[in-house]
Amino acid sequence: MSGRLIGVGVGPGDPELMTLKAVRALAAADVVAHFAKAGRVVGTGRTIAAEHVPPDAEELALWFPVTTEIDKDEPAYREAICSFYDRAAAAVATRLDAGRVVAVICEGDPLFYGSFMHLHARLAARYPTEIVAGVSGMAGSWSAAGLPIAQGDDVFTVLPATLDECELARRLRETDAIVIMKLGRNLPKVRRALAQAGRLKQAIYVERATMAGAAVVALADKADDGAPYFAVVLVPGFEQRQ
Amino acid sequence: MSGRLIGVGVGPGDPELMTLKAVRALAAADVVAHFAKAGRVVGTGRTIAAEHVPPDAEELALWFPVTTEIDKDEPAYREAICSFYDRAAAAVATRLDAGRVVAVICEGDPLFYGSFMHLHARLAARYPTEIVAGVSGMAGSWSAAGLPIAQGDDVFTVLPATLDECELARRLRETDAIVIMKLGRNLPKVRRALAQAGRLKQAIYVERATMAGAAVVALADKADDGAPYFAVVLVPGFEQRQ
Repeated sequence: MSGRLIGVGVGPGDPELMTLKAVRALAAADVVAHFAKAGRVVGTGRTIAAEHVPPDAEELALWFPVTTEIDKDEPAYREAICSFYDRAAAAVATRLDAGRVVAVICEGDPLFYGSFMHLHARLAARYPTEIVAGVSGMAGSWSAAGLPIAQGDDVFTVLPATLDECELARRLRETDAIVIMKLGRNLPKVRRALAQAGRLKQAIYVERATMAGAAVVALADKADDGAPYFAVVLVPGFEQRQ
Repeated sequence: MSGRLIGVGVGPGDPELMTLKAVRALAAADVVAHFAKAGRVVGTGRTIAAEHVPPDAEELALWFPVTTEIDKDEPAYREAICSFYDRAAAAVATRLDAGRVVAVICEGDPLFYGSFMHLHARLAARYPTEIVAGVSGMAGSWSAAGLPIAQGDDVFTVLPATLDECELARRLRETDAIVIMKLGRNLPKVRRALAQAGRLKQAIYVERATMAGAAVVALADKADDGAPYFAVVLVPGFEQRQ
């Protein structure tokens, strides 16, 4: 008799943006796992869900060995991260083999740019697995900005800021609604690509949406010095079409 | 003293996927408004939120005058729909002018392909306005399918099935993760475009995700006869990269 794996989306940051289903899934879990960045005391997802982790659940913190700012094409990075996910999956599997229900806390939505997907890929074929969809970080961002992002027949595109400048500019020209993620040190390049594509004026910069210290400003008014890795730039497709 | 407008995302269908914040916003509202399709007894959003609409709140049903299957480029359609949104906004404004808190129920997320955006465009500059982000219908779909959709540096694109076949095929070739929406009668065209782009084998068809009667099948196993307008096709970008 094996246990059950549940990927629990806890939303973009405001604990009130957790779903009823996420709250109930955590309350019923035997084991509550979460990912945490190297160097942090606790993971962001764990902080969001703090009030809903049962005191008698076993907690399993999965610490990334390296930061996400390291070039992903470095072989050493790939090796470290892959072996980390293997160990994390093995730790979860041990609990599942013992018949326990393991809830994995996922920031945003579990299957949309989330670390949980690496556990899912390793475990979902072997154990009963369930996903509790969550409010994405992006939805938190455009909601905090009060910015209607996409409507009607808009093409909506999520672009990683890691793309090269020409490629970014080309894709920015071809889509209506845009989210650019993984800003970090890529912000100056993103700004140039937006200018090339004629979309800079509409671009909104959002940092820490729905959390303490949230910032929403026109990208034109934001300096290039320092954007957190999880900040985003939004360009709305819905322009007062009514 | 004017009231307050709140766009309340109620998620993709399962009432358990409402957020704590959505539940509280509805409980505190003086007026609860919702959009409903012509010909229906009640709107889908209102059904999702049923347990959380306060019995003493004034209810305001906003009935679409035409169905969304009508060609949006028809001038008669545009005129009917625009005048409908004008009237809906006026009805909400009357309540806001009376100092009341008006919560508008939004399926999925209020600012992501939602009807609420038309009220937002007409009212947000004149009244205090707040958005409660919701789980999108798309997130409900890939979660129900257990399908990791996008990861890492994936480019993620939402394409309306209303695009012409060549344009669809071209865009399908250029993106990693894909959601195709507004299927309805466009399903045969979408299938041809996916085949042209070499993505048909990976495509998953999802209907009524997280609701009663949900269907998740490989698109290759789904007949072309009849897809609901709100069914989607998903093509994952995350292909067992680990």
